[in-house]
Amino acid sequence: MPSISRKGQMMPESPIRKLVPYAEAAKKKGVDVIHLNIGQPDIETPRVALDAVKNNTLKVLEYSRTEGSDTYREKLTAYYKTRGVLLDAGEIVVTTGGSEALSFALGSIADAGDEIIIPEPFYANYNGFATANGVRVVAVASDIATNFALPPIASFESRISPRTKAILICNPGNPTGYLYSREEIQQLADLVKKHDLFLIADEVYREFTYDGREHFSILQLKGMEQHAIMVDSVSKRYSMCGARIGCLVSKNPEIIRTVIKFAQARLSPPTYALIASEAALETPQSYFKAVIEEYVERRNILMEALGRIEGVQVAKPQGAFYCMAALPVKDADAFARWLLEDFSFEGSTVMVAPAAGFYATPGLGKNEVRIAYVLEKERLRKAVRLLDIALKTYKD
Amino acid sequence: MPSISRKGQMMPESPIRKLVPYAEAAKKKGVDVIHLNIGQPDIETPRVALDAVKNNTLKVLEYSRTEGSDTYREKLTAYYKTRGVLLDAGEIVVTTGGSEALSFALGSIADAGDEIIIPEPFYANYNGFATANGVRVVAVASDIATNFALPPIASFESRISPRTKAILICNPGNPTGYLYSREEIQQLADLVKKHDLFLIADEVYREFTYDGREHFSILQLKGMEQHAIMVDSVSKRYSMCGARIGCLVSKNPEIIRTVIKFAQARLSPPTYALIASEAALETPQSYFKAVIEEYVERRNILMEALGRIEGVQVAKPQGAFYCMAALPVKDADAFARWLLEDFSFEGSTVMVAPAAGFYATPGLGKNEVRIAYVLEKERLRKAVRLLDIALKTYKD
Repeated sequence: MPSISRKGQMMPESPIRKLVPYAEAAKKKGVDVIHLNIGQPDIETPRVALDAVKNNTLKVLEYSRTEGSDTYREKLTAYYKTRGVLLDAGEIVVTTGGSEALSFALGSIADAGDEIIIPEPFYANYNGFATANGVRVVAVASDIATNFALPPIASFESRISPRTKAILICNPGNPTGYLYSREEIQQLADLVKKHDLFLIADEVYREFTYDGREHFSILQLKGMEQHAIMVDSVSKRYSMCGARIGCLVSKNPEIIRTVIKFAQARLSPPTYALIASEAALETPQSYFKAVIEEYVERRNILMEALGRIEGVQVAKPQGAFYCMAALPVKDADAFARWLLEDFSFEGSTVMVAPAAGFYATPGLGKNEVRIAYVLEKERLRKAVRLLDIALKTYKD
Repeated sequence: MPSISRKGQMMPESPIRKLVPYAEAAKKKGVDVIHLNIGQPDIETPRVALDAVKNNTLKVLEYSRTEGSDTYREKLTAYYKTRGVLLDAGEIVVTTGGSEALSFALGSIADAGDEIIIPEPFYANYNGFATANGVRVVAVASDIATNFALPPIASFESRISPRTKAILICNPGNPTGYLYSREEIQQLADLVKKHDLFLIADEVYREFTYDGREHFSILQLKGMEQHAIMVDSVSKRYSMCGARIGCLVSKNPEIIRTVIKFAQARLSPPTYALIASEAALETPQSYFKAVIEEYVERRNILMEALGRIEGVQVAKPQGAFYCMAALPVKDADAFARWLLEDFSFEGSTVMVAPAAGFYATPGLGKNEVRIAYVLEKERLRKAVRLLDIALKTYKD
């Protein structure tokens, strides 16, 4: 039999996917599985986006433009302007999800054997994009005790090698919920300029910041024009994960030129989704206000309820809609499986995402889980109650 | 300034894209540019697919399933069964266009430095997917004099090295329009089995075969279970290029497992497009019949008209909707640019795709162009008349 590629063998499996069969088996037994594990918001997509697709009058579903239409990119610059980011349309390449933007960014800056530095825990699919590009992830550990704040900049600098091409951050963070301050971003900026690296920021959760804090984009810093690559997406902002529309933004024309070559090979982003995404830009500010309020309430409920469980340590999220919790268990992976296989209370159980998959360093995060608060408050309360009961029952 | 990756520098630009500014300038001058250069059919998308999207009742535009829903993949097996290909749903991974399927196929079987053999001329984006994966394309020349039939199998075998991972074909061919016979496919199958390689077939034009000839899929051959990887797409079949839905099909479970890992990293194919694609499977056979008749008439018009131009040699297409023509010019690239920059007749000109970009071997195809017959008959007739006049005027 012909052989699979080395990188194909090394491609990581989603850390959640291996739990899915257990969740399905539980559901078959009639157990109500409450999902704390997924990043799919339950929030309704803005009407204006849904209607634009329903009312489309296309007769031929044609290719869209490789890098996105001028109209859509112009409108995106207007959106970014309201967020303090000044752009030209030509500094934006529209992509098939933030995923593709990340993939193009890595392909444009790194060859097989090159390295990128990422603070861990991080979004597990960064491993996939890195592996697919033959790129090695070098992790810098952040800590639940400091809410996963930026680790000391010296710990980044000490990991820079001749193969290092970029530092990659997610801001606000998935899975941490941490929102980097302007000062933290400035430290990273100074470091990448000093060592002539790229700084890639995944800002797909940029709208979701709490307690009056504001998101600060790497594109707001002067002097970073050659270094900054920003990745964005409509998925979370408008609760339209299924659209698969994102973008890559950079003021470095070489980056844009290169990314467009990768984009040409795949022809174009999906046309219907572009109709929805362009219309979504008309979403009234009241929509975001209501959504943020909802997430803040959920977060508060979650923090309070988790805080009451003995032995549970929680990082308080300032953005996004995830929270990392350290549980009083040895192996959160085994616990998550046990929840689905062996536990139920009054016909219900919960599914959590074991956090080890968000760390690159073996052994880190073994007792942590990621909880997504993308479900209604009553379900959330019930889920934490179940978790409490389960932890009291469970024996490592 | 931090540097672009080697592969980013090596990524090819679309051979057509560099002509686009000249076409735009011509249009600005008021010239009617007839596009013979593009693969975007003018044929209407089936009503049933368009209506399914218009009538959707989604409230949250959610992620779809990474590998495609069971329902859609079951329906796909029913479609393939009518075409003589027997499959299980689990042998299909739904992708974001045939492009992504090709990209996943290469990533799953080849590492940086590995090789794939492709008969040239071939679809130019194969170069892009290969470069993005660090894979070297080894070309075997086919010839306009034989309608671009499969080159002698010995010329494939002589190019097999320890780094060779696969042979890649497009059937029917873009840009050649050539339809491989069962015997040709069998020869390739025997060769890949002998040398333990994969055979990848891009069958996105599988429905477009003419003159009573039938498409023969690599999945119809027994004994190829471990070797065959088929790539397909809804783009051309239903004239819905903008959907960006395709699939990868293989009976090799290792391939499917690996491709799904690549697919997980990008989460899911676009949801609206899946609604359209699933509904498109209900397209009545009469739609295809009408479309094929239309393409055959166009092809015949094109063949006849081109045949009357002195010095023009044409390969007769038996499938797809492209035709390669050798022109009495030294450099078709310069000619194509001249057509847009310096030529017009009664306010009109034509845009053709210079064929050198479809060859990997430097110098081959320099006097050839690809003509797509995806426009209405009168426009097609006019375009060839213009080409005739232009060729009589043009001086190398």
